[in-house]
Amino acid sequence: MKHNGFNLDDAVAILERTPASLSALLVGLPETWVTATEGDGTWSPYDVIGHLIHGERTDWITRARHILAGETRPFEAFDRTAQFTESHGKSLEELLATFGELRRESVAMLLGMNLRAEDLDRKGLHPELGEVTLGQLLATWVVHDLDHVGQIARTMAKVYSEASGPWSVYLSILRER
Amino acid sequence: MKHNGFNLDDAVAILERTPASLSALLVGLPETWVTATEGDGTWSPYDVIGHLIHGERTDWITRARHILAGETRPFEAFDRTAQFTESHGKSLEELLATFGELRRESVAMLLGMNLRAEDLDRKGLHPELGEVTLGQLLATWVVHDLDHVGQIARTMAKVYSEASGPWSVYLSILRER
Repeated sequence: MKHNGFNLDDAVAILERTPASLSALLVGLPETWVTATEGDGTWSPYDVIGHLIHGERTDWITRARHILAGETRPFEAFDRTAQFTESHGKSLEELLATFGELRRESVAMLLGMNLRAEDLDRKGLHPELGEVTLGQLLATWVVHDLDHVGQIARTMAKVYSEASGPWSVYLSILRER
Repeated sequence: MKHNGFNLDDAVAILERTPASLSALLVGLPETWVTATEGDGTWSPYDVIGHLIHGERTDWITRARHILAGETRPFEAFDRTAQFTESHGKSLEELLATFGELRRESVAMLLGMNLRAEDLDRKGLHPELGEVTLGQLLATWVVHDLDHVGQIARTMAKVYSEASGPWSVYLSILRER
């Protein structure tokens, strides 16, 4: 099912791989990497996993159901700092396991919706962005995953900004953000 | 061993995780993702894996040995387009398996060097950048991995630039490069 550039099977293929890819990258890594940030007000890899968990719990599937239910009121706003309280006291490994479990459930719920091409045009109201479609929501879910994979890579790369010396001129990730 | 911000154990922790993380992300993905680029002259995830393989074969360990041997001539220049011929006819899965195998060997060779802190200050001559140290080479290896993880995430995210509709304003990865 391909629709305005979006394809449900392709989207699911990314969504179901993100947790395993992040676990392979992060499980057992020294704290240097896990707690690194890009400076004040930016997120560590640990923070990002908490944010992805909060998305599984309150954002993607909830909003897809909201649209399919034909709700006319806007989506609930998404809390972008929930992870700072919700992750408290949990190890990175626990968070990654939780993310993997919630994502499996989310993908199962998504597939259980048995969406047809015309469903992807169904509309919802975003509290800030206004009218959006189900297809846009699902495409955003995929891009959001990849955005945070990129953020984790960038945040960890910057730990060695100085250590890489003259080579830093070739390493463009060090100059992003 | 911590030295100018570089720590060998921390570096190895990233180097040994990159292949599994990329395999978890990419194995079995539809072609849409694997062959996507950011436009003319940019690389697909498939191209990137070939580039990482070429680095294992000709760059990192080779240059580390060059430095430790006390060579005064510059390193061989690195061929940044070798993958376009070397990957020819190979599946992504073959390339990922090769990368994983070569990286395991590279890490074993790196650990077999039994480096001491003072070795990290040993110098080599880069054909363009001039004098560099072994520590900088090894830090660059780590950042280079993460740079390409970020590149793969960004390249795939851009496939859904349009499909994500109004949400694209929140997805900053879509505006990088």
